[in-house]
Amino acid sequence: MSKSLITAPIAGFPEFLPGEQIEFDKMLNVVRRHYQAAGFTPIETPSIERMETLRAAKAGDEVKGQMYRVARNLDESMTDYGLHFDLTVPFARYVAQHRTATGANNQPIMPFPFRRSQIQKVWRGEKTQGGRYREFYQCDIDAIGDGELSHLVDAEIPYVMYGIFKELDFGPFMIRINNRKILQGFMANLGLDLDQAKHAMGILDELEKVGIAAVTTKLNDAFSLSEADARKLINFMQSQEGKTVDESLKFLHQQGIEGLFNAGLVELTEMIEGMRLWGVPESVFCIDLTIARGLDYYTGNVFETKLINHDIGSICSGGRYDELAGQFTPDQAHLPGVGASIGLTRLFPRLVKAGLVNVDRQTVADVLVTSKDHDQMPQYLQIAKDLRDAGIRTELFTEKTPEKKFFQRQIKYARNKGYPLMIVASTDDIKAGCVKLENPQTGESTSVVFNELVEAVKARL
Amino acid sequence: MSKSLITAPIAGFPEFLPGEQIEFDKMLNVVRRHYQAAGFTPIETPSIERMETLRAAKAGDEVKGQMYRVARNLDESMTDYGLHFDLTVPFARYVAQHRTATGANNQPIMPFPFRRSQIQKVWRGEKTQGGRYREFYQCDIDAIGDGELSHLVDAEIPYVMYGIFKELDFGPFMIRINNRKILQGFMANLGLDLDQAKHAMGILDELEKVGIAAVTTKLNDAFSLSEADARKLINFMQSQEGKTVDESLKFLHQQGIEGLFNAGLVELTEMIEGMRLWGVPESVFCIDLTIARGLDYYTGNVFETKLINHDIGSICSGGRYDELAGQFTPDQAHLPGVGASIGLTRLFPRLVKAGLVNVDRQTVADVLVTSKDHDQMPQYLQIAKDLRDAGIRTELFTEKTPEKKFFQRQIKYARNKGYPLMIVASTDDIKAGCVKLENPQTGESTSVVFNELVEAVKARL
Repeated sequence: MSKSLITAPIAGFPEFLPGEQIEFDKMLNVVRRHYQAAGFTPIETPSIERMETLRAAKAGDEVKGQMYRVARNLDESMTDYGLHFDLTVPFARYVAQHRTATGANNQPIMPFPFRRSQIQKVWRGEKTQGGRYREFYQCDIDAIGDGELSHLVDAEIPYVMYGIFKELDFGPFMIRINNRKILQGFMANLGLDLDQAKHAMGILDELEKVGIAAVTTKLNDAFSLSEADARKLINFMQSQEGKTVDESLKFLHQQGIEGLFNAGLVELTEMIEGMRLWGVPESVFCIDLTIARGLDYYTGNVFETKLINHDIGSICSGGRYDELAGQFTPDQAHLPGVGASIGLTRLFPRLVKAGLVNVDRQTVADVLVTSKDHDQMPQYLQIAKDLRDAGIRTELFTEKTPEKKFFQRQIKYARNKGYPLMIVASTDDIKAGCVKLENPQTGESTSVVFNELVEAVKARL
Repeated sequence: MSKSLITAPIAGFPEFLPGEQIEFDKMLNVVRRHYQAAGFTPIETPSIERMETLRAAKAGDEVKGQMYRVARNLDESMTDYGLHFDLTVPFARYVAQHRTATGANNQPIMPFPFRRSQIQKVWRGEKTQGGRYREFYQCDIDAIGDGELSHLVDAEIPYVMYGIFKELDFGPFMIRINNRKILQGFMANLGLDLDQAKHAMGILDELEKVGIAAVTTKLNDAFSLSEADARKLINFMQSQEGKTVDESLKFLHQQGIEGLFNAGLVELTEMIEGMRLWGVPESVFCIDLTIARGLDYYTGNVFETKLINHDIGSICSGGRYDELAGQFTPDQAHLPGVGASIGLTRLFPRLVKAGLVNVDRQTVADVLVTSKDHDQMPQYLQIAKDLRDAGIRTELFTEKTPEKKFFQRQIKYARNKGYPLMIVASTDDIKAGCVKLENPQTGESTSVVFNELVEAVKARL
């Protein structure tokens, strides 16, 4: 077998080195803590779903072509199951499936509104240019109501995200908010019916990517929308750049468009008011009418979040989807939902490259117990055991090392792994009842007697 | 779309309800903490691997037929990629691929021995009878050395597992240890060559499942081993039931078989001595010569762990694999490894069923802030915000509720979710500057003024 065949990376499937993984996990833990602090209970769903479920999501055509199919062996049909491409669709299916579940005392296990968090990998066979991955983490929070769901939840979700981005400290960010009904209402005024307007969202979502001319052509091809009307729509969408939230709200009210447009404006206003109540500062959010979102299931408020200093697209986006979960119920129940997702996988390598994350520490342990003289291994082992029993994360160097190779093999091991602390003891040290506590990076060393070791290590950490 | 089509569970792909997921996550966190305490640094690998990689693992025929293939769309070949069926093979590939990686100062990032932990889902298309799943978590620790790897690590791994099972407190368990070289050496004495003896391990692994007669027949069919010799082998394997470790070691020495058998006995003895040094009590481990392990990549010490009170097969198994990682290197480097895996997914539903895990709490939040009078929402929201800012996990009930439905919708919501604490405030309460702190399960209630609320809640948790 050739090397290139077996050990080359698979394009689009990221794999981190230990120091990177440690820092990546820390970020996921920050996200997890904030999600749970706001009462979004963690769930997990299987990695695969029926293709019917994934298709019922009415995801855009783009995502449909990116789905990964799965089959148990070569004989099985590949058309039955696929890896999930997001966590919103599985969550909607989960709620529809389990909403009537009851506990030991017949009490409903999932009283509404049901708020959940979900942090799992998802798969999309995207082009791998531009740092896009085909397997990546999504970190989601969502709520689904039974019959109703307050737009206060639309506001609470970006508030939670705001807390996360403040703590993660990637630099300034902007939450760009819109409401799909506003765009659809505007299009109704231009003569498009509701189905057409909904379908147009996928085209409008590409405005930033493909430009005004291409979107104009596509709108004309799909709905016979005149160039003048298309320009009108695009001008409207781009009109709020640089405006404050209040200026944008005023502008939208001044349009004086009733019906769907106004319904969207009411929802958007409620969301904005909620965000202000939650204390999200005006400096981190704005109304941006170009936000359309690529997934077809969104119905109302939508948002995307961009880091000001990193050109990597949205790192946190979401919105309201009032018709998704109901589809999975036999009675087509009204189960409105809202949620958002953070994508950290794509961001992470850029943070590393920009030097914003320190990935030099290749170990989660706090201290390395070296083994200078293999004959003393029972003593080294006992030291490691004592430290672990005291709650100190400890690695024991187990390999027999000739004395003259001790520096090369063990000290350098501690240094390369980024250990801040190691324990070194010769046979003489052990006979004298003491060990040396050393910083392998600086060579700084102190002698400590056995029964003070645990405290001495704790004091250094 | 019919209900059965869309929302029925997919056989073999487990999905937990919120209260179950919360408890399952706690277990995973116990495992994670112990792994990291022993200096096994966390990594993750992609869910898919090249089929060449998965096949190079020389996994048994059984696993090979269970692999899930993946393809990006219907036109792509399904023969290129598969979901990983364990974490050992991906880890071995990871080490071979990254072993020469260097950091910012050109220092090796992965000095050997490399110790890692890995907690991810794996996929095997097994028959779904007997509570077997097709998607389940494996929680692995492994170490791989460059050229050498002390058998002290073979001992350290069951020591870490012992600490985990003690804390998880599932009841008594037994770590059953063997060494494949002992069985292979015994078979050499019966006239089988090494390749035959290695191949026979897969047959012997099924002894417990299919019985003596079937194994005897299979050994005869495959290697023309006489029935008498097959009986001799099986008798040898079954001879140590009920014996102490020292009795078994003495028995093995008394066989006086040199070569491979003796090499295995030396490795086994080193492992046992190491476990004693680490303080693993004799009551939780034994030598069991029937342990063969189903995966072909094992080369030396192997073990399986059974819970005494639960008949669900091995919940933690592993062993030594000295030839796996080297296969992925162009120079066929000697990269010996050892590790083990805990499988909690299959165990968990049984623990729930046996009442050993309490899954009544459907929320990770500590307190629910109810909203009795929707007009006072800004005040309720402020209370929730203050509690969260103080580090208390808090959910706000957001839905407008008619006064006469307050009990039915909000108090019952708190009760069904298993909240130990909720905050109730009428408009009058808020005007008076206080709220009620209630236990929704018992109805017990105390009045607290606003600026003492955070402390009062903390005191209750």
